[in-house]
Amino acid sequence: MMNFKKSIKLLALGGLLTLATQGAAQAAVSDETAYVFNTFQFLINGALVMWMAAGFAMLESGLVRAKNTATICLKNIVLYAVAGLMFYVVGYSLMYVDVSGWIGSLGGAFYGPSDAEVALLTADEATAEQVAAVVGNGYSVASDWFFQMVFVATAASIVSGTVAERIKFWPFMIFVTVLTAVVYPIQGSWSWGGGWLSELGFSDFAGSSIVHSVGGWAALVGAIILGPRKGKYVGGGVHPMPGSNLTLATLGTFILWLGWFGFNGGSVLALGDAASATWMAIVFTNTNLAAAAGVVAASLLTQILYKKIDLTLALNGAIGGLVSITAGPDLLFHFWSIVIGAIGGIIVVVAVPLLDKLKIDDVVGAIPAHLLCGIWGTLAVGIFGSASLGAQITGIVAIGAFTIVCSTIIWFALKYTIGIRAGEEEEMIGLDKVELGLEAYPEFGKGSQTL
Amino acid sequence: MMNFKKSIKLLALGGLLTLATQGAAQAAVSDETAYVFNTFQFLINGALVMWMAAGFAMLESGLVRAKNTATICLKNIVLYAVAGLMFYVVGYSLMYVDVSGWIGSLGGAFYGPSDAEVALLTADEATAEQVAAVVGNGYSVASDWFFQMVFVATAASIVSGTVAERIKFWPFMIFVTVLTAVVYPIQGSWSWGGGWLSELGFSDFAGSSIVHSVGGWAALVGAIILGPRKGKYVGGGVHPMPGSNLTLATLGTFILWLGWFGFNGGSVLALGDAASATWMAIVFTNTNLAAAAGVVAASLLTQILYKKIDLTLALNGAIGGLVSITAGPDLLFHFWSIVIGAIGGIIVVVAVPLLDKLKIDDVVGAIPAHLLCGIWGTLAVGIFGSASLGAQITGIVAIGAFTIVCSTIIWFALKYTIGIRAGEEEEMIGLDKVELGLEAYPEFGKGSQTL
Amino acid sequence: MMNFKKSIKLLALGGLLTLATQGAAQAAVSDETAYVFNTFQFLINGALVMWMAAGFAMLESGLVRAKNTATICLKNIVLYAVAGLMFYVVGYSLMYVDVSGWIGSLGGAFYGPSDAEVALLTADEATAEQVAAVVGNGYSVASDWFFQMVFVATAASIVSGTVAERIKFWPFMIFVTVLTAVVYPIQGSWSWGGGWLSELGFSDFAGSSIVHSVGGWAALVGAIILGPRKGKYVGGGVHPMPGSNLTLATLGTFILWLGWFGFNGGSVLALGDAASATWMAIVFTNTNLAAAAGVVAASLLTQILYKKIDLTLALNGAIGGLVSITAGPDLLFHFWSIVIGAIGGIIVVVAVPLLDKLKIDDVVGAIPAHLLCGIWGTLAVGIFGSASLGAQITGIVAIGAFTIVCSTIIWFALKYTIGIRAGEEEEMIGLDKVELGLEAYPEFGKGSQTL
Repeated sequence: MMNFKKSIKLLALGGLLTLATQGAAQAAVSDETAYVFNTFQFLINGALVMWMAAGFAMLESGLVRAKNTATICLKNIVLYAVAGLMFYVVGYSLMYVDVSGWIGSLGGAFYGPSDAEVALLTADEATAEQVAAVVGNGYSVASDWFFQMVFVATAASIVSGTVAERIKFWPFMIFVTVLTAVVYPIQGSWSWGGGWLSELGFSDFAGSSIVHSVGGWAALVGAIILGPRKGKYVGGGVHPMPGSNLTLATLGTFILWLGWFGFNGGSVLALGDAASATWMAIVFTNTNLAAAAGVVAASLLTQILYKKIDLTLALNGAIGGLVSITAGPDLLFHFWSIVIGAIGGIIVVVAVPLLDKLKIDDVVGAIPAHLLCGIWGTLAVGIFGSASLGAQITGIVAIGAFTIVCSTIIWFALKYTIGIRAGEEEEMIGLDKVELGLEAYPEFGKGSQTL
Repeated sequence: MMNFKKSIKLLALGGLLTLATQGAAQAAVSDETAYVFNTFQFLINGALVMWMAAGFAMLESGLVRAKNTATICLKNIVLYAVAGLMFYVVGYSLMYVDVSGWIGSLGGAFYGPSDAEVALLTADEATAEQVAAVVGNGYSVASDWFFQMVFVATAASIVSGTVAERIKFWPFMIFVTVLTAVVYPIQGSWSWGGGWLSELGFSDFAGSSIVHSVGGWAALVGAIILGPRKGKYVGGGVHPMPGSNLTLATLGTFILWLGWFGFNGGSVLALGDAASATWMAIVFTNTNLAAAAGVVAASLLTQILYKKIDLTLALNGAIGGLVSITAGPDLLFHFWSIVIGAIGGIIVVVAVPLLDKLKIDDVVGAIPAHLLCGIWGTLAVGIFGSASLGAQITGIVAIGAFTIVCSTIIWFALKYTIGIRAGEEEEMIGLDKVELGLEAYPEFGKGSQTL
Repeated sequence: MMNFKKSIKLLALGGLLTLATQGAAQAAVSDETAYVFNTFQFLINGALVMWMAAGFAMLESGLVRAKNTATICLKNIVLYAVAGLMFYVVGYSLMYVDVSGWIGSLGGAFYGPSDAEVALLTADEATAEQVAAVVGNGYSVASDWFFQMVFVATAASIVSGTVAERIKFWPFMIFVTVLTAVVYPIQGSWSWGGGWLSELGFSDFAGSSIVHSVGGWAALVGAIILGPRKGKYVGGGVHPMPGSNLTLATLGTFILWLGWFGFNGGSVLALGDAASATWMAIVFTNTNLAAAAGVVAASLLTQILYKKIDLTLALNGAIGGLVSITAGPDLLFHFWSIVIGAIGGIIVVVAVPLLDKLKIDDVVGAIPAHLLCGIWGTLAVGIFGSASLGAQITGIVAIGAFTIVCSTIIWFALKYTIGIRAGEEEEMIGLDKVELGLEAYPEFGKGSQTL
């Protein structure tokens, strides 16, 4: 962005040299125009990320059994709501305000427009100075809040899929509350808040680690502490519990793919000059190539391994590719994003049965796609991008360790107080009837007998 | 595009004062840039509002029984089409052209670009004057038409859910035709068209009353005149008729939430300077907070009241929060939007059983969410915002009275001519088979026997 | 918005010639601002077109029988992935790089940012010259690639619906690979690549022929070579095979409608001045009116012909209207788009039973909507628009002949090598179980017995 004060000063010199500068400036983006671009891109790309909440809801609804479907829908809309409120009450402050290195402001904040913005918006006739005071920030503060807020919700969405079909509603929601209010913001302050990880050179463009692996670690710890669904692992074998609605799972994946353009593209954090716009286009392109490569790699590998193409693995291949490119979607050589995404697709196919061997019951396959591909994507920036591998590994370990410790404490605290797991009979009946008193599809299939 | 080198050369002739002026201008948004921003925001935000038509279709599909699902899908796509055509033929003219105070132009209009736009677009090489003539309007006329048109469709969408499962298709569609061609535009001319309500100081930013309560009143009158579904209220009790597909209802709610950013955000009506962009960001933020608060309030209240969390009430809580903030999403103190949205969520939970007590059968809960929360949101601008409570109440009453009178006339006219209600046997069989000759889910549930 | 007249007045104090020039320049969009607008519109409108892939997936999922649903989901996500990769590897080069008249560069290209972009993006501090070098291109090269790429995917999506329920997965995917890598790009080079058809004056704004009829011809040839589904045409009659999930078909249609704003609107290819923005608004408006007219015309006609309104025909009426307006959505007299779209809706209703008479089994009705309406829309530009009817007919015939020949060769090559059609028993069981080893809805309907 052009420096406003500097340009004013230069103008005062008048004459030819100034005029040449003027010519250049005129061809450039004015400060206020840049402000509008930056703000608008936060809003539009942020709306696309918000839409990912619907993607997770549909993906997870499609991959659980019918008897737990309404519950997963409820969890997804409530967690999106809670994440937004928590980020308003305390999260944004912890992550971005006065970050000391390890944590932001502990005071919390009822967030509102900046003083300069209030002055501009309430003026009868705004002065150039009032405009300049607002424009100097580069973007409206609410647009930044909105964009950062939708990212928190993504981290929370990841957890709900893994622990589905046996966790109780309110304990889960308390976990989400703490995750989004405290855990996510604190580790986020280390990097995006300008803390110690960012000073170390750790690079995670849109959050392979900061968003996806945080969600993934929290999910992994939850899955271990909760234990698998009844009947999932019996007699040394794995009892398949197929998702009840694969069209919705497909829809959810397409929604996530679309939303990811906002997730990665908006993380350029600016649109106010030619360079930012060019970066955003590069990011969109790499994001799409990585997702496409993830789908194709996962499809080919399942065909080779199993002589069939499992739709759910192809869908998770797309997500694996997307998570993998998220840490470094700004690659100038687009071919690497195909490589990175394809490896993401392969990771998903290989890791899903591995988790089953460890008897870790991840209902929707979120741990391979978000945690493992998140780690891979963060490492890939050290391999194909400009970050040092050492800094990347430090970030992965630090974020992982912090999230594991926090999640363990919260899950155990919940387990030994209000309990986290539905009773055996409740699990058999399904959470929808037990916790919600309704059914997602009362007239379909098994439900038809209740008509 | 401006010729870069030429401008450099010409600039070399200027002097100091000019330069100072230039400096200010340079930091600002040029008129043509503002025109592009304003036009583009109408299109993008308008596209989001159009998407709400899909949201209503999914919400209503999910909340009706399977046997009436295809019909509700058909109604939703046809009503969106009809609303757009009616607003082209006559609605826009009645609402925005030469508004006398109580009504716009009665002549109707086959709408097209302005003369200045035609001159610019058909010029071999456009002159600066031609550009200026277009730019002076602030935005392209088609972008404004598009944005206003999608709002009409929303009002119509609200009606279809309430009167579902027993209304005949074509009478409903005639109602929608009159509603979108005449009723909505005339009352809209009073406020957004610059008529008497706007002169009174009535303030309804994006249409809590003008859009949502109009749809809600039309729905309420329709529900009363139609009567409840057979078997809904028997022996003093309420027979539950659960929605057949709650994942779709959830999807629909997420779609509405996303679309609402365009609904409220686009209602800033501009993006061409720092203030407009800042307002839009504030509106996005308040919209999200109110919806989130609506979800949480409705969920907590149902848990307290019923010891269960009804998914459909949580979803309607989101909508209630959204409708409530729609009249005043430009609050500078964001916390109030949480309060306003939470009260919206509470209204929904409280009003749904009240309607049942009155034996008013509102299939999807649209009356609490759109009518009551629309009234609440409009009042809230008088409480938390800058409008006078008197003006707000006047607007609520005037819009309500007009819509009630018109709706009553139309519904009765239809009832006593072609009839509005499906026969008893048709209702039992379901409208899909009777009116469409098909089924939405021929292979699922009950339908499986027909395979 | 900045006050245009005021700024003009202030300027009047400076040197006259300069000021006039300056005034114009200042009121105009700067080069770099135009670059940002152009790039951003490619990304946002391109994202909407990407979303159409989800629309096709949902439409087709809804219109096939449950036993083939997971397969159609898989096809749709894999074909979108393959189309993107092929367009990266070779398609973009064949279509847009060094087009000789009949074909672009045969060399293929691993695509990346331009040298000027790399210089700008890797500079420690960018010079005005570096910015100007990038800005001179008008938009970022990746944004253009992204926008063109999503169009290829649309052409491929059209095919999958027609040949559904009996084609084998991998042969279909090979067809898509060749279609998107070679067939689509070569014919596209003739018009959009600047080849012989564009020199002839052939006009196809967003691809009624170039995208939709190419997909439609490939689908038609495929349907003929594959033959109808078992049991579809028996004893001279047509055995209806109703779609299994009409809510998803409805959702898919709404998604397509939304995406089409990006499809047609983005095809203005610019947003960097008042004229471009005005064109985009006109295109959005005409697109919506044509779709609405298609829905209403199809609904009324089915009511008249069959005394019922077939939901699937109403949905295809929307698509028919959209395809019909795609060749010329830049009409200044909006009423013609209603006429064009309504004829599109009528074509769909008339052609669907005609295809059945010819025993051409088009599972989702893609041939009427995309091929016939594509032809109609391209002709309409010769009737209502500025192109000569001769050029339009030449284009329709040339693109059709080329696609028919290529498709015939590819389909036969596949048929006589690896085979394209699933076995009779496999078709009876359903492709989901046979090729994927799973079911889309294992707990619903017929599937309930497997619980």
